[in-house]
Amino acid sequence: MQNYKIVMAYDGSRYKGWQRLNENTLTVQGVLEDHLSKCFEEEILIVGSGRTDAGVHASNQVASFHSKKNLQPDHILKYLNHHLPSDLRIKSIERAADRFHARYNSKGKTYIYRMYNHKVMDPFRRKYCYHMPKELDVKAMKKAATYLVGEHDFQSYTTMKSKKKSTVRNLHDIKIHTVGDELHLEFTADGFLYNMVRIIVGTLLDVGLHQYKPEHVQVILDKKVRQEAGETAPPHGLFLDSVEYK
Amino acid sequence: MQNYKIVMAYDGSRYKGWQRLNENTLTVQGVLEDHLSKCFEEEILIVGSGRTDAGVHASNQVASFHSKKNLQPDHILKYLNHHLPSDLRIKSIERAADRFHARYNSKGKTYIYRMYNHKVMDPFRRKYCYHMPKELDVKAMKKAATYLVGEHDFQSYTTMKSKKKSTVRNLHDIKIHTVGDELHLEFTADGFLYNMVRIIVGTLLDVGLHQYKPEHVQVILDKKVRQEAGETAPPHGLFLDSVEYK
Repeated sequence: MQNYKIVMAYDGSRYKGWQRLNENTLTVQGVLEDHLSKCFEEEILIVGSGRTDAGVHASNQVASFHSKKNLQPDHILKYLNHHLPSDLRIKSIERAADRFHARYNSKGKTYIYRMYNHKVMDPFRRKYCYHMPKELDVKAMKKAATYLVGEHDFQSYTTMKSKKKSTVRNLHDIKIHTVGDELHLEFTADGFLYNMVRIIVGTLLDVGLHQYKPEHVQVILDKKVRQEAGETAPPHGLFLDSVEYK
Repeated sequence: MQNYKIVMAYDGSRYKGWQRLNENTLTVQGVLEDHLSKCFEEEILIVGSGRTDAGVHASNQVASFHSKKNLQPDHILKYLNHHLPSDLRIKSIERAADRFHARYNSKGKTYIYRMYNHKVMDPFRRKYCYHMPKELDVKAMKKAATYLVGEHDFQSYTTMKSKKKSTVRNLHDIKIHTVGDELHLEFTADGFLYNMVRIIVGTLLDVGLHQYKPEHVQVILDKKVRQEAGETAPPHGLFLDSVEYK
């Protein structure tokens, strides 16, 4: 069996997320598996580095798959970019060591949340930035972020489906920086819980709008109750930016 | 009568261009007039600085209109941005001198053509950049552009509907510059003929791909026959960037 590593970018607007669900639901995994199966003329099942939710974008999602066939990576890349819809592009394909697994081997991930912070929305960015027309106290947001960096139980900052799994994660870094009219919130962690980035963004927005003080983010963390945190920010501002492997 | 000047941005993807045609055709002018008429509770007719074609975008299109009513510009702006579709945004509205006319008073315009010059297209820019996967000889394109700058009869570079009107225009400047993975072609003129920018872009692309030499652009100019020039580049890379008034 030959193992392959694939890196892709997708505009998540049309998709009900990464994970394949059923024949009637448009998902990135579903579309990609269908086209890979046609290319290889056998059923191909892929493993993503992780799931992205409905409407979330990816600049560099990573997946892996095995096949009985050993095809030229360049041929696969051309086949896919010719047949896939234009909102899903393959950036690279390479043969990978047999033990490589896109999910298990991931050492960390970076997500970027883009916010357009201006009174009137830019129509060209309406699908790729969350529109925040009000002024934000970025300094307070940066201070609030410091309470979240490090290894914590992020139970307040997730809407977990299962209560059995650990909600402890190591949030290596949160960078908040202004890029023109945009405010970018960049999160790097060993892994992320369901809705974790979007709930943290919603909570940092509350701080930026002076709903509560930066220190309150620590209080929310300690309470370990989802209801204490801010709202889940909308998906269209979120990008899976990169997946790190050792 | 009160005169108003309005500046807007639109994603042209869904629209059959600027100019109102009939009730069943989606046009920017049509949508804007309908909403302004509701806002003013009277029939409003607007004058654009010029027409943009189907699929062409605008970062700063300018229009003017008269009304019997004197409404607060800020109220109109809020009304429109609340009711208009999200691909059409009003950037500013101000009361204008009675003699101001968005078309007749225009002294010049700048268009930018965005090209994504990389093997694999970026899915987030697929609606806003023309994809050119091949390498371009930018130096040759810049040289070719110099033959077009100045006052010329651009008959070869337009698909005019009428043969009676003058096809002489003063093309003040063509700037070609690289912005990350993008190549931007920026055109400033006193006015543009129908399809002029897109035909010039198609011709400069032929030069960039070594279909013919930079000097051939002058030969095409002299022949005054549309068929001599390159293909009309697709609309989705084109932006009306600004309209200059004295």
